[in-house]
Amino acid sequence: MSQTIDQVKSKAKDLKPLFEPKSIAVIGASRRKEMAGYSVLHNLITVGYKGKIYPVNPKADEIEGVKCYPSIKDLPEAAELAVMAIPSTAVPQTLKECAERGTKAAVIISAGFREIGAEGKKLEDEVKRIADTFNIPVLGPNCLGNINTDPSVMLNASFSRTMPQVGNIAFISQSGALCAAILDYAKGENIGFSKFVSIGNKTDITELELLRYLRDDPKTDVILLYVEDLVDGRGFIEAAREITGDIARPKPILAIKSGRTVQGAKAASSHTGSLMGTDEVYDAIFAQAGVLRVDSVSEIFDYAVAFANQPLPKSKRVAIVTNAGGPGIMATDACVRYGLEIAKMEDSTVEALKKVLPPTSNFSNPIDVIGDARADRYEYALKCVMNDPNVDALLIILTPQAMTEIDETARVVVKLAKETDKTLIACFMGNSDVISGAKILNENRIPQYVFPEEAARALGAMVRYRNWLDRLRTNIKVFTVDIQKAGRILEEAKKNNQHMLPIHQAMDVFKAYGFPIMPYGFATNKEEAVQKAREIGFPVVLKIVSQKIIHKFDVGGVKLHLKDEGEVANAYDDMYRSVTAQFSPASIEGVFVQGMASGGREVILGMNRDPHFGPILMFGLGGIYVEALKDVTFRLAPIRELSAHDMLEDIRAFPLLKGVRGEASADLSAISECIERLSQLSCELPLIDEIDINPLLVFEKGKGARVVDARIALK
Amino acid sequence: MSQTIDQVKSKAKDLKPLFEPKSIAVIGASRRKEMAGYSVLHNLITVGYKGKIYPVNPKADEIEGVKCYPSIKDLPEAAELAVMAIPSTAVPQTLKECAERGTKAAVIISAGFREIGAEGKKLEDEVKRIADTFNIPVLGPNCLGNINTDPSVMLNASFSRTMPQVGNIAFISQSGALCAAILDYAKGENIGFSKFVSIGNKTDITELELLRYLRDDPKTDVILLYVEDLVDGRGFIEAAREITGDIARPKPILAIKSGRTVQGAKAASSHTGSLMGTDEVYDAIFAQAGVLRVDSVSEIFDYAVAFANQPLPKSKRVAIVTNAGGPGIMATDACVRYGLEIAKMEDSTVEALKKVLPPTSNFSNPIDVIGDARADRYEYALKCVMNDPNVDALLIILTPQAMTEIDETARVVVKLAKETDKTLIACFMGNSDVISGAKILNENRIPQYVFPEEAARALGAMVRYRNWLDRLRTNIKVFTVDIQKAGRILEEAKKNNQHMLPIHQAMDVFKAYGFPIMPYGFATNKEEAVQKAREIGFPVVLKIVSQKIIHKFDVGGVKLHLKDEGEVANAYDDMYRSVTAQFSPASIEGVFVQGMASGGREVILGMNRDPHFGPILMFGLGGIYVEALKDVTFRLAPIRELSAHDMLEDIRAFPLLKGVRGEASADLSAISECIERLSQLSCELPLIDEIDINPLLVFEKGKGARVVDARIALK
Repeated sequence: MSQTIDQVKSKAKDLKPLFEPKSIAVIGASRRKEMAGYSVLHNLITVGYKGKIYPVNPKADEIEGVKCYPSIKDLPEAAELAVMAIPSTAVPQTLKECAERGTKAAVIISAGFREIGAEGKKLEDEVKRIADTFNIPVLGPNCLGNINTDPSVMLNASFSRTMPQVGNIAFISQSGALCAAILDYAKGENIGFSKFVSIGNKTDITELELLRYLRDDPKTDVILLYVEDLVDGRGFIEAAREITGDIARPKPILAIKSGRTVQGAKAASSHTGSLMGTDEVYDAIFAQAGVLRVDSVSEIFDYAVAFANQPLPKSKRVAIVTNAGGPGIMATDACVRYGLEIAKMEDSTVEALKKVLPPTSNFSNPIDVIGDARADRYEYALKCVMNDPNVDALLIILTPQAMTEIDETARVVVKLAKETDKTLIACFMGNSDVISGAKILNENRIPQYVFPEEAARALGAMVRYRNWLDRLRTNIKVFTVDIQKAGRILEEAKKNNQHMLPIHQAMDVFKAYGFPIMPYGFATNKEEAVQKAREIGFPVVLKIVSQKIIHKFDVGGVKLHLKDEGEVANAYDDMYRSVTAQFSPASIEGVFVQGMASGGREVILGMNRDPHFGPILMFGLGGIYVEALKDVTFRLAPIRELSAHDMLEDIRAFPLLKGVRGEASADLSAISECIERLSQLSCELPLIDEIDINPLLVFEKGKGARVVDARIALK
Repeated sequence: MSQTIDQVKSKAKDLKPLFEPKSIAVIGASRRKEMAGYSVLHNLITVGYKGKIYPVNPKADEIEGVKCYPSIKDLPEAAELAVMAIPSTAVPQTLKECAERGTKAAVIISAGFREIGAEGKKLEDEVKRIADTFNIPVLGPNCLGNINTDPSVMLNASFSRTMPQVGNIAFISQSGALCAAILDYAKGENIGFSKFVSIGNKTDITELELLRYLRDDPKTDVILLYVEDLVDGRGFIEAAREITGDIARPKPILAIKSGRTVQGAKAASSHTGSLMGTDEVYDAIFAQAGVLRVDSVSEIFDYAVAFANQPLPKSKRVAIVTNAGGPGIMATDACVRYGLEIAKMEDSTVEALKKVLPPTSNFSNPIDVIGDARADRYEYALKCVMNDPNVDALLIILTPQAMTEIDETARVVVKLAKETDKTLIACFMGNSDVISGAKILNENRIPQYVFPEEAARALGAMVRYRNWLDRLRTNIKVFTVDIQKAGRILEEAKKNNQHMLPIHQAMDVFKAYGFPIMPYGFATNKEEAVQKAREIGFPVVLKIVSQKIIHKFDVGGVKLHLKDEGEVANAYDDMYRSVTAQFSPASIEGVFVQGMASGGREVILGMNRDPHFGPILMFGLGGIYVEALKDVTFRLAPIRELSAHDMLEDIRAFPLLKGVRGEASADLSAISECIERLSQLSCELPLIDEIDINPLLVFEKGKGARVVDARIALK
């Protein structure tokens, strides 16, 4: 059974031995209760792990009543899973021994790796090397461990204080201490988990591998993530999209990303770069992945409980049934705030309600069954509303008034839930008398919230996810482009140590990629300039081309509104005179001649290549909107057609593009096609580091757009 | 002792008998447990009310062991407070009898008033008339009642299921059913109240009278409001400001305003009117009142607990002490999001921490005492940080890890709180093992939150309130204006049934109120037009003045850029010819001649008179910003100087006024002075219904502003 490094070939790692091992070696098992090695063993035993447990400790015969082995070699068989709680320096060698013996997965609880500096980093690299060599998945190091509540496994390979209940929620956390808090919270709230994983330094197993495993895990319906960073943004998008977008078996992914500090490390020379904070990039990643980003732990669990227990609403039309007017209004406000629609019911529904409810009730949505409603009145009203074809989801509010039958009303809700595939969310308001009713609801998979705002917010999250599932599916377009030509220009520039492409060459690159471009030419003398202007058609602009001259306008290096050949010739002379007064003629490479358009709206497109996430695309309205109001949006390349369209609608100033005061809409598809071309260009030409297209001039719908000015910076 | 209607004169109503009565008549006391008349009596008795209780019911001798009286006349004395749970039709007569007998306050629990239509409205008007005639305060009708937890009173004159604990929070609710839910919630969370009031239809006692009473209530430190509407916006601002801004005895007011629907009733002819939703007006009212508006019940209690138990931070610098990295990062993110500053500690503090904490700790803020910290390490770290002069508030995070001493750490926090006047907020994360620690904290007035985001949010609210307290105090300026002249113009227009003032008269009104105005004149013939133009100075604009012509531009009724007298004369002829081609010469009143300025930024000021709240002022950036982006802000007039300044900073596009790309700032004080003048004008000239100043052209700092175009609509 034993393998050596040479015998093992790399293949996709199988996480089954990590979550469903038949046997486990606890290396570093300890009798001292303050040691992780004690807790892990203790947890495995007390939770009732179904496989074999082999404590490994050279100094003990037995711990907690289980026979102990002095070393891995002494084990009667190769344990499928090795859990290590030993000094970090001993980890690489131990991991190797385990792998050679035939162990198929490892959890490294031990700290003392990358997080302590260079020394630890070396150990961690060694761990990774061994893990890859033997092709075994390794969780950690520096983690709490992992948990699988499946009754046929009952694995708690962690030093947690608590074993969670069985449930259909998987939780992946980059913070071990957060796991401790979450487990304590979930215990109090009766929230169950399918899998619970602390990924620590995620040297080998990252959220990517776990997502792929959870995608196929029949016990998991909802996936929660706490991340501080993602190493592979593009890979994350692909893995997550596959899960969140699977119509046959959709699993929502909810994520908290913490560490919202602005990226400071990389000096940016482009608008795009200077506007791009880490946080905006993560917004882009989560948007493209269909992951719902949330801001707080309470929010993530509010949502998780709804997703884990109720069917997704078909669409956003909600009916509110309440025994109190005020909370009904609060719920209505909150529903609207979170993107829901207050359902307009059929007349027949309203009539049916009127037949039985007291006259002071409110018969239109929100339906107020009034304060003295007992369970039977709730039942009647809920049935009427539930059967209305205009209602997708029901929000049931109860306030504990004198006559209110709390438990009985809860049982009514539970009963009705079995008769419908609509989404039912309850809000039994309070925290004392209503507790017993809330318990009945919770135990029967009716999500229950203390106040209407949280209930509406959770329902709003479900609708957002429904929209994601129902979205138009589009592809990454591949345009026919002249990649060779563009490549040659960049290679040439690189060879000449040009950091910034001259404007005419930047335009050549965009042209090769099929961007619509304002007609232009490059001239090295007056006659040529006039000739180019004639070809382009008047009016034209002249701009000096020189790597030396940064502020071309200030030195008279730009001439606008040239109406005929004479004006071009004069402007050329003027410009040459004025520029050579400050710069040597040798520094002038030539003159850029460009057509001038009137009208149009200015937008800006950009790309900045992130060391981790690759090319990141930016879109915003030109000028002050970008600079002063920072009204921009980002996406990772490559981008799908729908995502490019979404970028336009993301910015606050979208109405200005769509047209105001009866003004025609800008050519939105021309913009999104440019974004898609920029995406392809950015992916295919890695020599480019940053791009600003500023402005892209956009005309009315059907009339296209033109690149007017642009900067391409090389690495 | 008895009084008749004629004997009583109106005076300010005293709420003492409502909250601290020496005797109470329960009119409609009942044996039937489902009746409010039972619950009220039962509550008074079981809670241990310290005064005398007189049940009134003609059909019973005693209820719940208390002697019953057949009518008010039969009572041995006039009960100070009368609580009525009788049919609404009997209420007015009963109230009158009580008042005549000498009762000093009443609570009308009964429903069946305004909320059921015209019939009930009549009854309610009668109640109000009697209340005013006898000058007795009446709570309700259609309310839950009121509660005073003061041990020397112990009043529960309501049909609530629950009596709250003693506390220093007062709660006023416009929804009775919400009260039921809140009491149930507070019971579960161990939150205490000083006063608890359901105001029902608020026919007589509104939130205003209650605010004034609570201002002087020594038992109340924090006031919570749930309102669905305010009747007197201006009065609310004044009453609330006095409470929230009292430096000697500040009491924060937190409010939930529900019913965020857009005002639809009043057709608006101005920008201001069309942009003004009810919700924006309430934002304005709360901003001017120093009231913290919150969106949800959980949020209001998160804040209330912090305000009720901890001193306000001196400023916004917070230190985070945690035993877990992840939650420390989450707390940092949340602190920044909620406007706090992560304190930069003294070097000496960091040195002191390094001396004792393990080397893998984090010594800069957030301070991570790491996972194996026991209570003693927390104590040492907290002491160091607490004594740092750069720290105003401490956020103490604990995750329940293997070695964590939960209760002992809680006791450490409690002990340290006694040694400091800094703000201490705790976040013992979880809901099971941490419960006992959380209880210790709660019982000792340390606000405790389950997750860091909520803790940071509460601290953020405290800092917002601190900023309100520390704000520059300014007055409502009174400018010297020519009110007579402005009044005459309006009277004249009114007499002529003009709905909209002609432009030159609108300008005359602004001129009378000292607004800076683009020079203008009014001419009725060509010679006069040329003469006015010469006086104004070139270039000028001509605009036709006519009530018949709405789209002046379209019919050639506007001429721009007129550079000299000849151009003016020609333009006049052109305009006259073009306009009279479509309209009769008689419809032309004359020509408006105006100077033209170059440069400047366009802003819009407006006023819309609300039937409830009086004149409401609007400010926004001109053109697309207002129309497409709806980037505007509102305040009620009269406005204070600071509030006018605040309006400028409220809009998202403020950076454009402040200046971008090295551009000079716009003349901000010129704008805010115009807002203040508009405020005075709106208050002093009630004939005006709506105003749009669009644009006000604003020049660089120090160079002022000019009203360019404006509309004044009369009632």
